[in-house]
Amino acid sequence: MEALFNSIAYFIPVGEAEKEIISTFFTEKQLKKGEPFLEEGKVCRHVGFIVKGLMRYYLTQDGEEKTFYFAKENEFVSNYESFVPQVPSLKSIEALEDTTVYVISYDNLNRLYSTMANGERMGRLIIERVFVEALQNLNSFYSDTPEQRYEKLLLAHPDLQQRIPQYYIASCVGVKPQSLSRIRKRLSLH
Amino acid sequence: MEALFNSIAYFIPVGEAEKEIISTFFTEKQLKKGEPFLEEGKVCRHVGFIVKGLMRYYLTQDGEEKTFYFAKENEFVSNYESFVPQVPSLKSIEALEDTTVYVISYDNLNRLYSTMANGERMGRLIIERVFVEALQNLNSFYSDTPEQRYEKLLLAHPDLQQRIPQYYIASCVGVKPQSLSRIRKRLSLH
Repeated sequence: MEALFNSIAYFIPVGEAEKEIISTFFTEKQLKKGEPFLEEGKVCRHVGFIVKGLMRYYLTQDGEEKTFYFAKENEFVSNYESFVPQVPSLKSIEALEDTTVYVISYDNLNRLYSTMANGERMGRLIIERVFVEALQNLNSFYSDTPEQRYEKLLLAHPDLQQRIPQYYIASCVGVKPQSLSRIRKRLSLH
Repeated sequence: MEALFNSIAYFIPVGEAEKEIISTFFTEKQLKKGEPFLEEGKVCRHVGFIVKGLMRYYLTQDGEEKTFYFAKENEFVSNYESFVPQVPSLKSIEALEDTTVYVISYDNLNRLYSTMANGERMGRLIIERVFVEALQNLNSFYSDTPEQRYEKLLLAHPDLQQRIPQYYIASCVGVKPQSLSRIRKRLSLH
């Protein structure tokens, strides 16, 4: 659980007492490649912390899957717009590789917030960061060119060529797969 | 400041000590109709609580103003994606009426979080709610019809006909002003 402790220590001091509480509330879960972490129409009941692996966020629009986000090792995974109000999710999240996550349930996360010293502060700081990242990603969809989106994606996932199928990258960048290779060629000329 | 105390009491207990701290950190500000609360390109330095009046959120896209949100009495006003990381804002906020707001600066809000009992908890709960509302509004832009957006806007602002100029309502619904009157006619037939 060291990776999880370290990620939380970015926000608040994590001593032995905090490690004890965190270990109690998070449980390990294995997802096979292709297995869902969250399905559209269901309530998001967990926040996860990815230890190993990769997840894909997507939604279905006019019968077509639109990929809009990836999360990998050392990142939190959840759909907060379903998780926070505990309402059905409009989005899906699935494992793109065999993935190990530490998960915490809604009730246990609320217990963690109130039990742990600086638990509320941690919660505030994490959700602030997730909020800002979500909005930046959404802004980027409507104001960046596909090239810029591809460059940002590459910055977030330097190993994306090896790990993410081209059609998911294309979908997340907002182009057809055949246009993606043109973008990659153009960018490699710089 | 009763309205502000009541809004905060929705999230955490507000006794005399909390009232004292809140009164110290928030200051009253008057905005004339048309005056900016936040300008595109500047860092959002304050969160406000609207006591009286109405604000419009907008962004400029291809030289055109797009209105995407309104906030009124008893609501918080800020652009968190600029405020939280303290980076320049892509969006603007202006008063649509003469407006009274209680404002708190970034530094003082952080002091409030750490000084006040349950301050961090309040911060977490408020940002969670703002986050979910922002995402719901964005989802609605891409999945609702203009009629549905108009109905939701009317639900949030039952007095919008009296207070918000038609072209801002049309922009927020996502149609040309002439289409808005057709939508209004259709809806009044139900």
